[in-house]
Amino acid sequence: MGRRTPVDDRTGRRIVPDTARRADRPADRHSGNRYGNRPTMKDVAARAGVGLKTVSRVVNGEPGVTPDTERRVQEAIEALGFRRNDSARVLRKGRTASIGLVLEDLADPFYGPLSRAVEEVARAHGALLINGSSAEDPEREQELVLALCARRVDGLVVIPAGDDHRYLAPEIKAGVATVFVDRPAGKIDADVVLSDSFGGARDGVAHLIANGHRRIGFIGDMPRIHTAAERLRGYRTAMEDAGISVEDSWMSLGVTDPERVRRATEEMLAGPAPVTAIFAGNNRVTVTVVRVLAEHSRPVALVGFDDFELADLLKPGVTVVAQDAAALGRTAAERLFRQLDGSLISPERIELPTQLISRGSGELPPAD
Amino acid sequence: MGRRTPVDDRTGRRIVPDTARRADRPADRHSGNRYGNRPTMKDVAARAGVGLKTVSRVVNGEPGVTPDTERRVQEAIEALGFRRNDSARVLRKGRTASIGLVLEDLADPFYGPLSRAVEEVARAHGALLINGSSAEDPEREQELVLALCARRVDGLVVIPAGDDHRYLAPEIKAGVATVFVDRPAGKIDADVVLSDSFGGARDGVAHLIANGHRRIGFIGDMPRIHTAAERLRGYRTAMEDAGISVEDSWMSLGVTDPERVRRATEEMLAGPAPVTAIFAGNNRVTVTVVRVLAEHSRPVALVGFDDFELADLLKPGVTVVAQDAAALGRTAAERLFRQLDGSLISPERIELPTQLISRGSGELPPAD
Repeated sequence: MGRRTPVDDRTGRRIVPDTARRADRPADRHSGNRYGNRPTMKDVAARAGVGLKTVSRVVNGEPGVTPDTERRVQEAIEALGFRRNDSARVLRKGRTASIGLVLEDLADPFYGPLSRAVEEVARAHGALLINGSSAEDPEREQELVLALCARRVDGLVVIPAGDDHRYLAPEIKAGVATVFVDRPAGKIDADVVLSDSFGGARDGVAHLIANGHRRIGFIGDMPRIHTAAERLRGYRTAMEDAGISVEDSWMSLGVTDPERVRRATEEMLAGPAPVTAIFAGNNRVTVTVVRVLAEHSRPVALVGFDDFELADLLKPGVTVVAQDAAALGRTAAERLFRQLDGSLISPERIELPTQLISRGSGELPPAD
Repeated sequence: MGRRTPVDDRTGRRIVPDTARRADRPADRHSGNRYGNRPTMKDVAARAGVGLKTVSRVVNGEPGVTPDTERRVQEAIEALGFRRNDSARVLRKGRTASIGLVLEDLADPFYGPLSRAVEEVARAHGALLINGSSAEDPEREQELVLALCARRVDGLVVIPAGDDHRYLAPEIKAGVATVFVDRPAGKIDADVVLSDSFGGARDGVAHLIANGHRRIGFIGDMPRIHTAAERLRGYRTAMEDAGISVEDSWMSLGVTDPERVRRATEEMLAGPAPVTAIFAGNNRVTVTVVRVLAEHSRPVALVGFDDFELADLLKPGVTVVAQDAAALGRTAAERLFRQLDGSLISPERIELPTQLISRGSGELPPAD
């Protein structure tokens, strides 16, 4: 960038186009851990061969620097990937701190309590929460994340749609705190907070087996989604542990829109050897299966992953493997602010337990 | 601001602190309609007594302007409240356009379809959607709205928590497209998209009266909230039209947390002359009332404002006055983009109809 790089006078942060930021700061440029070892103004001054005050003038857009000196400082800033750590300065400067939350579906009730928990932690730290949705589209996720970074959020909580997050490495290096939740990050080293999808699904299916079922169907989301793959693995493991060989017709994986789930459920319930129980891979699947079973003559057992509103008031009540969505959000947000205050040294993977809640549908015996 | 005003080189938009923006551009400074008559670079050049190219240099942060000339241009820019209209330039410049959506509760499922509809319209226009929640706090709403403006959203869809939005007038004058949805704006002239809360509540209560009820309870949200006040008015009107004088003990207004709603419901069902039917003012109230009634021996009729997931699968199914949340979001977002493309001349108030859906709970006769 030949000409003057603009500076936000509320934060002193240089505004660099996403493209330039991605290009100028490959992930592997810096050594040391993510949260420490960020280049300082001193490093910039040393590399540019100028005084600290000169660097400060350029960064803050103050006059009194010759174009040539400014260019040298800018080159050093870009070569080092220097960026003001605003998360700390924000409150001093009076600008409201903000963190971004990237969801995959604004209309999925599972994210309601998760979002509100993140918001409550943000508020407790005097920060605003800004949300966005990837609509399960990896490109959209990247576009949204980088747009939030360009809008100077101090940190990001991301429920990823994609499985390659190397595009985020430069932002993380540049000081944007980042925690992934519900699903892990792909191809970068990042904080991750998950539910035990594998163990929860295994327990739920084992519960159906314990109630006498052997022909158990599994209806889940696209296997490219980490949680969907893990829950399928839990299903397979529970069946294998019980010595039951799974038939392909018992498994349906794909988008969880009502039409597909309805068709899949009806197929599993048709034919000479229908399933006697169904394990639903998420709350969207479960509510559709509940609808189909309500129209079905023969009772069919059901356990769903994720709790949902009114599950206990249906007849029978729906047995679920409950995740603590609020705890996922709270844990992720608290780690985010620990990154921002510098008290975290390196990324961790945290897995929260699930809880089987028996309400009747999962305790129905096989119909035949 | 004495020193150089920074400029975002992706958009050329001047970055001005919220405080300065509020102070420098009172709502009543400009004449003409909101969307037209915005000061141009020409106006700035004329007022500063310089050429257009000089103004462009300053606005774009290009070199070759003396400090004194720059100061004069800056003064003209601030006096006139000049601001680049980025909504048009955005796509040319390649920066992603974005619109903000301010909700009042991230966990209220009513906002799921509304948010997703706004997002779909935004995407159709190549814009990103950024959400935030006021958590029903007017100060939080203002903080969030101004933070989104400072982060250069091109437009805002606002579900207001407060009833005074004069703080937004300078932003609107400065070119931020704005549409209020679900609740009207306060003390400013703005686009508003609402459901017919009054008519919907009146019809729902009239439905209970038509089924033989006279002692009908109303449980709603804080009356300072427009929708809550309108629904209460609908209840009162329907009762009055039927010649029924409402007793104070039949009405409960306040926060819709489960504890208060449960207490209110139990009080209305106790005593010598309990209510035989309840009208619930929103979906949060309805689901709690459903829980209380499920524990209650005597059947009590129920009609709720807002439809909700699985309402049809409960026994009895819950009769509701349904709003079209997706249509509210879609209509608001489409008006927002019509503001941005300049095809709207002046603000309107649009009211969408509601629909009574009979499922059983609203058709129960009085128990006595």
